[in-house]
Amino acid sequence: MKQKIGFMGLGIMGGAMAANILKAGYQLMVYNRTPGKTETLAQMGAGVASSPRNLAQAADVIIAMVTGPEAIYELLWGDEGAAEVLGPNKVFINMSSVPPRFTRELGEQLALKGTILLDAPVSGTKKPAEEGSLVILAGGKQDKIKELEPLFLTMGKKVIFCGRVGQGSMMKMFINLLLGVMMEGFAEALNFGRLGGLDLEAMLDTVFSGAMNAPMFQVKAGNMRDKNYPAAFPLKHLSKDAKFVLDTAYELGAPVPAGQMLLHLYRLGVAQGWGDEDISAIARVMEYLSGK
Amino acid sequence: MKQKIGFMGLGIMGGAMAANILKAGYQLMVYNRTPGKTETLAQMGAGVASSPRNLAQAADVIIAMVTGPEAIYELLWGDEGAAEVLGPNKVFINMSSVPPRFTRELGEQLALKGTILLDAPVSGTKKPAEEGSLVILAGGKQDKIKELEPLFLTMGKKVIFCGRVGQGSMMKMFINLLLGVMMEGFAEALNFGRLGGLDLEAMLDTVFSGAMNAPMFQVKAGNMRDKNYPAAFPLKHLSKDAKFVLDTAYELGAPVPAGQMLLHLYRLGVAQGWGDEDISAIARVMEYLSGK
Amino acid sequence: MKQKIGFMGLGIMGGAMAANILKAGYQLMVYNRTPGKTETLAQMGAGVASSPRNLAQAADVIIAMVTGPEAIYELLWGDEGAAEVLGPNKVFINMSSVPPRFTRELGEQLALKGTILLDAPVSGTKKPAEEGSLVILAGGKQDKIKELEPLFLTMGKKVIFCGRVGQGSMMKMFINLLLGVMMEGFAEALNFGRLGGLDLEAMLDTVFSGAMNAPMFQVKAGNMRDKNYPAAFPLKHLSKDAKFVLDTAYELGAPVPAGQMLLHLYRLGVAQGWGDEDISAIARVMEYLSGK
Amino acid sequence: MKQKIGFMGLGIMGGAMAANILKAGYQLMVYNRTPGKTETLAQMGAGVASSPRNLAQAADVIIAMVTGPEAIYELLWGDEGAAEVLGPNKVFINMSSVPPRFTRELGEQLALKGTILLDAPVSGTKKPAEEGSLVILAGGKQDKIKELEPLFLTMGKKVIFCGRVGQGSMMKMFINLLLGVMMEGFAEALNFGRLGGLDLEAMLDTVFSGAMNAPMFQVKAGNMRDKNYPAAFPLKHLSKDAKFVLDTAYELGAPVPAGQMLLHLYRLGVAQGWGDEDISAIARVMEYLSGK
Repeated sequence: MKQKIGFMGLGIMGGAMAANILKAGYQLMVYNRTPGKTETLAQMGAGVASSPRNLAQAADVIIAMVTGPEAIYELLWGDEGAAEVLGPNKVFINMSSVPPRFTRELGEQLALKGTILLDAPVSGTKKPAEEGSLVILAGGKQDKIKELEPLFLTMGKKVIFCGRVGQGSMMKMFINLLLGVMMEGFAEALNFGRLGGLDLEAMLDTVFSGAMNAPMFQVKAGNMRDKNYPAAFPLKHLSKDAKFVLDTAYELGAPVPAGQMLLHLYRLGVAQGWGDEDISAIARVMEYLSGK
Repeated sequence: MKQKIGFMGLGIMGGAMAANILKAGYQLMVYNRTPGKTETLAQMGAGVASSPRNLAQAADVIIAMVTGPEAIYELLWGDEGAAEVLGPNKVFINMSSVPPRFTRELGEQLALKGTILLDAPVSGTKKPAEEGSLVILAGGKQDKIKELEPLFLTMGKKVIFCGRVGQGSMMKMFINLLLGVMMEGFAEALNFGRLGGLDLEAMLDTVFSGAMNAPMFQVKAGNMRDKNYPAAFPLKHLSKDAKFVLDTAYELGAPVPAGQMLLHLYRLGVAQGWGDEDISAIARVMEYLSGK
Repeated sequence: MKQKIGFMGLGIMGGAMAANILKAGYQLMVYNRTPGKTETLAQMGAGVASSPRNLAQAADVIIAMVTGPEAIYELLWGDEGAAEVLGPNKVFINMSSVPPRFTRELGEQLALKGTILLDAPVSGTKKPAEEGSLVILAGGKQDKIKELEPLFLTMGKKVIFCGRVGQGSMMKMFINLLLGVMMEGFAEALNFGRLGGLDLEAMLDTVFSGAMNAPMFQVKAGNMRDKNYPAAFPLKHLSKDAKFVLDTAYELGAPVPAGQMLLHLYRLGVAQGWGDEDISAIARVMEYLSGK
Repeated sequence: MKQKIGFMGLGIMGGAMAANILKAGYQLMVYNRTPGKTETLAQMGAGVASSPRNLAQAADVIIAMVTGPEAIYELLWGDEGAAEVLGPNKVFINMSSVPPRFTRELGEQLALKGTILLDAPVSGTKKPAEEGSLVILAGGKQDKIKELEPLFLTMGKKVIFCGRVGQGSMMKMFINLLLGVMMEGFAEALNFGRLGGLDLEAMLDTVFSGAMNAPMFQVKAGNMRDKNYPAAFPLKHLSKDAKFVLDTAYELGAPVPAGQMLLHLYRLGVAQGWGDEDISAIARVMEYLSGK
């Protein structure tokens, strides 16, 4: 018999991921801090929990997909938090983007209750979340991850084992650092070319015809053409991730010159009020820095 | 009847490109500053010119694929330089990587002799050069570029028209800026992950499974695994290109924060004596900055 | 009657500051985690506490001058920590360099016990500490700061009121950001001039003769001449402060491009094993980046 | 008998310097591209040349104080340029801010005519220029510099011998790199403190009371208070100098991370239309990057 799943956090990503779990036939209970977002899932057959505690009581496996450490603390130790009802028979999976150190410390706290923590942040944004083609970056006990693979594969096309708990978060920092650099480089180069009189389509053609042709550039090209940046991955979240990367790099003694540049530039986008737009709105930042 | 082609500059790229022209049945004369490199082409049937002037006299279309502005000046106005024998019946094609301003000024100088200049730098490194699958970034008179397309297509899979003369060079700066950023980001992220305890293969798997999966990363992964960086595109050339990007950006008033970071980091690689290794040796720079 | 003072943390700075309090006639008890450092002060007449709690019991005003937040937590809530014996009749003064947010939170925690927290980090390094000519950057209740001014003026030449508790820490971040930038700029420019063939004395003469002539450059010139960097302000501490600056800037939404560069460069010095040398050893980092 | 002096370039700096030469009793002829600026000096007794050539014919020592390499070329080889009438009996002194390489090449060109080139850029801006208290950074034949010291000391308080011709320009790059870093650091730290709720006067007091107290900060504090930046040293000139520093650093293989940051930030100020304001208008750039 399939486990009962609880899913907390129904944003752009979480909503789509929960829907895919449900479609795969799992019994699902959902919770969201702001209640409106549960409606679609309720209509699809999900139960709606009135609080994190209520959800955690009903579920064997509890998944969190929220905006960061503070939100996870709130779910666990806030009003009607889930922590009180956790125990040895439950698994807690954090799929949110958080620093590795936070995950390790969370693992130690949950271990006191006998609850296993897995960390399983994802690579991929809105579209892969909807299509169930995310890449799951899993850290924690390998046999538990193996056991839960069918659940993960309702949301993703692949599970990559990253090491002990916290290493999933580390892999997420790794891939988001690369993502941030590539997005910035794409925007910077296109802006440089624009000021140098190059045609946008000729530039895109050059990128798409050569070794730099990453799927991300294909996906974001439309935003660049339209100068319109509907959020698949909000800029403010990448700004936050860049800070996590820097904090982690500082602990590790890792040089991250590009990471530092990213924090500076994406933060500038947030300061300009573009935090809820897509990360590709970094193109706006380049124009802002150009003054033309 | 096909035009007689002269090809000057038989380095990693030029040697492979000249060979492809020859294989396509063109009558080809070659010249290289250091004579050894002409042998293979001579055995394949190319004529060998004793000087740039000698080559320019014999050819209708003269191609230069050298290391930059100084080398082009030397070919044209140095000892036994080609400039003296150029005239209205000849076309000069610069395929070397140079700043747009240099190309525009060169175009004006050659126009005084009635010689048409086309600029046609390429996107792609060693392997595409050998396979004839480069992307040709062409600037100059569009009808002339159209006329010479069969010649270009012996070296490349595609010709992208970039605008008036100098805009091919501008497009090359554009794409090399993106290339440099991506290569640096790849190396920085891999080094960050290494220090954070991630497995190299798991990191590569994560990159290859998602939206950041550019062909370049596939190509360079082997170097990263082996910690060995045989030059497909020498690091010192990318350092030079980064300087061209900055000079051009300064003229245009274009912000290039990543471009500046690149110049700093690739230059450091050159200072450490890694200039003749591949651009992927930027991984060495990241380790050097880590001190571990 | 003068208050009884307790002083915890007898490093380069703290040792000199405690000695000045003692010389001014205050009754002083000292504590240091590693016991050797208390000897000189004991010979001068200070009492030696066996634990932070022991010290806090005996003193009216408790001063901490340690390496950062972790060390302060340890003094207060670690083994035999001081917190348990704090109460309404005592004042706790943190003179260590910490982030403003930490100070504000500490203030709230001590307020629960009725204990007033003042923050009073200092501007100035080893020599001003010895000479009692530090600048005291004081945050907290202004009447309490006024009342304690005679105590502060045993250690410093001046008290600058910075605002509510935490603003002393903020001012310390402000001045250390400027200090770090100036030290880096001095080292970078001297290295640039060296590679350009300029004579060190001629460069120093140029700095000392013009508007850039800050006392710090006079003080550090000897280290630059000798290529020897005995710690007045250890590089690892400035690296840590740079991280505090970045964390604070992130919360404030403040752009700190130079601050980011500092973190990158000073951290590199720490990674090379130069953390216990003076901040002027950033000159070593510039040479390291030069490769010559 | 004193030499006859010719002075070309009567901007903020040049006008004041020429006046001081005149006041010292030298026979002076002046030239400026735009004629209005010669009037004050003519009223003080200077001759006014109708062209650079006219000036060079009449003078033994020809001084240029203009905006950079292009302007010097124009004075020498433009319409009615001075070069044609230069010869072994004349000395040409470039006091403009230019790259060292340019100065060395200019020296070689003038040597062909037997004319000695000295380079003597200055440290100091508007006020020291008016007061005759500049620092003269002299490169070239040491005996000739010695011989002309009385002339230099009408404009400055001190002559620092920097080495062969070009090394004066190198020293100027050195000191302007430091100046640019300090100005940026001052503005960045003040903006950081502002966003952190610190009082401007308390911040200035902290700077002025400690080791960072450079005369420049005293001088620029007024602009910071008034948020008004009348040009003593125009921002666009420092932007240009930052580019010269980077070009020179690239040739030397010198790491200049702060120099690169400067170019990025001061260029941004120029792009925003603040190029004619003082370098302290970098404070505007910091606010612009803050978005508040």
